Amino acid sequence: MDGAPAKVRFREPQIEMAHGAGGKASRRLVEGLFVPLLYDPAGPAADRLGDAARLLIDGADLALTTDSFVVTPLRFPGGSIGELAVNGTVNDLAVSGATPIAIVASFLLEAGLPTPELEAEVRAMGEAARRTGVAIVGGDTKVVEHGKTDRMYITTTGIGRRMPGVTLSSSSVRPGDKVLVSGPVGDHGITILLARGELDLEAELRSDTRSVLPLVQAVSAVAAPGIRWMRDPTRGGVATSLNELALECGLAVHLEEEAVPVRNEVRGACELLGLDPLHIANEGQFLAVIAPEHAAAALDALRAAPGGAGAALIGEIREQPAAAVLATTRYGGSRIVDMLVGDPLPRIC
Amino acid sequence: MDGAPAKVRFREPQIEMAHGAGGKASRRLVEGLFVPLLYDPAGPAADRLGDAARLLIDGADLALTTDSFVVTPLRFPGGSIGELAVNGTVNDLAVSGATPIAIVASFLLEAGLPTPELEAEVRAMGEAARRTGVAIVGGDTKVVEHGKTDRMYITTTGIGRRMPGVTLSSSSVRPGDKVLVSGPVGDHGITILLARGELDLEAELRSDTRSVLPLVQAVSAVAAPGIRWMRDPTRGGVATSLNELALECGLAVHLEEEAVPVRNEVRGACELLGLDPLHIANEGQFLAVIAPEHAAAALDALRAAPGGAGAALIGEIREQPAAAVLATTRYGGSRIVDMLVGDPLPRIC
Repeated sequence: MDGAPAKVRFREPQIEMAHGAGGKASRRLVEGLFVPLLYDPAGPAADRLGDAARLLIDGADLALTTDSFVVTPLRFPGGSIGELAVNGTVNDLAVSGATPIAIVASFLLEAGLPTPELEAEVRAMGEAARRTGVAIVGGDTKVVEHGKTDRMYITTTGIGRRMPGVTLSSSSVRPGDKVLVSGPVGDHGITILLARGELDLEAELRSDTRSVLPLVQAVSAVAAPGIRWMRDPTRGGVATSLNELALECGLAVHLEEEAVPVRNEVRGACELLGLDPLHIANEGQFLAVIAPEHAAAALDALRAAPGGAGAALIGEIREQPAAAVLATTRYGGSRIVDMLVGDPLPRIC
Repeated sequence: MDGAPAKVRFREPQIEMAHGAGGKASRRLVEGLFVPLLYDPAGPAADRLGDAARLLIDGADLALTTDSFVVTPLRFPGGSIGELAVNGTVNDLAVSGATPIAIVASFLLEAGLPTPELEAEVRAMGEAARRTGVAIVGGDTKVVEHGKTDRMYITTTGIGRRMPGVTLSSSSVRPGDKVLVSGPVGDHGITILLARGELDLEAELRSDTRSVLPLVQAVSAVAAPGIRWMRDPTRGGVATSLNELALECGLAVHLEEEAVPVRNEVRGACELLGLDPLHIANEGQFLAVIAPEHAAAALDALRAAPGGAGAALIGEIREQPAAAVLATTRYGGSRIVDMLVGDPLPRIC
């Protein structure tokens, strides 16, 4: 219609589960198909397709993010789809350096869904929103025939105001910067796996779903000018988020494997299943790259904040190997940590 | 968790197709369950759950709207789900008196979806966005197992800047105001019905899907202070939108039935099926209530704008019967026009 050249490089014949898993396949789909067809560099709000877009409108400095939630089962120890749908969008804004203001929610419901199931999730959304101080200001509901969706899917979109003094960009990351994580990794993914009951495994584990906004605020209160980059390592886990960072900035992320907090239950399940905890999804943690002179203050502030006691310094940025993530193991060896490949744990959020 | 009293009045035991049809059942679900559980009158952006919420952020006067699209089939004469997903959100902003700025899109894809089907819809979205001058600035993709969705569902959320000088509110509507429609009604719904091939009916009909923004701008250029209310009559049709207006303002909408533009193909299909064209969904039309002294200028501007030749003055606001829509038939009789009840045409958008 308008002659915009669209160079679609995505060559796979059909969509597979892995294209929604947040790892390498997702990246190929986004970069190879969505970006060339949708992204308009001459558009009024030129920004890269990402988790939160920056919008400058009439002097307001805003962030906008959207996410669909398809987790199964709907309820699991520590949370539920409704709570995830609010916290996930709040967290995408928070790690973009924005304070959430408002959320709109769209529901895809299956005909025949018992009302109490819907009510429980809508209630969970309202409660999560009020805990964070974000308003749910609009929505939409579509109902499809029984069997054309899996009980319910929820899409939330959040708008936030960017925090003054916080400027995040992977291109600002420098060798010597420190990598922090807000708490133990892998709780959410392994909790969902266990909740499905397909494994003969039991563990006292709960999803980590929560708003990370108070923790982000604690860091920015003491180290705002030193925060280079933040990300919530959901689908694809810590490994995928850090690989994306490494690719974007062209530097190396060196992780000290033993410094990464992982609960025994998560480590045990991963060993049994041949999974790497660094690939497991989190819903209430975030990664931050902090300038070296601000790192100690940022870590102290995180640990002193409610829910931040498990925060840790897990690595640093170096020059080499370029655009890669390297983990130093407890025995002194090192290994390249790749992005998630395939989808070992589908429909985790 | 936080003790907010939530008075859920929705008592139906399960969700039915009609709860997503945009008519009476949808209203019961929204008013009885979503609003009490989600809407926080003390929230930072207090507004009623609706198609577009108004947000005032740092001096910017914004509108935010979200919609999921589940239309089947994905492609139909005149349009496709991707085009609807952009135009529908653009139109929700336009009839809220806002100029669209940016859209984020979330895709729910079925594993096994052929890539060309996805590419066609993403391309349609990019083209529709560029035609309107709105940027697609972010997104999300989830993939679920084959059979857990119907090929693809798309959720779009749009943000817009409210047009200066345009203040819309059902409470500003007064007896004597005129009701305009931008063109013939029912094209979209009947096109989808025919495209499904379940009826032994053929007609040269196309969906009316388009951006109504240029038409809204044409009206506001000549009659901004006179525009009281606008709405795009999608699910539930003209009858449902006008009933919502009547309920909100407590006045009567008197329609001159013969003045409502309806194509012969739509009228014929409706007569065969026992449907009222006023209940059929539209995707490229809007209703406007205009102060009497601005109505002629508004209608002239609409008719002079590209795509507006079919616009018509179809009725006026009166005092009685309160909170109702009345249609005067061509034989001089009159009938009460109710909201859509049930869902004669599911998954129309």
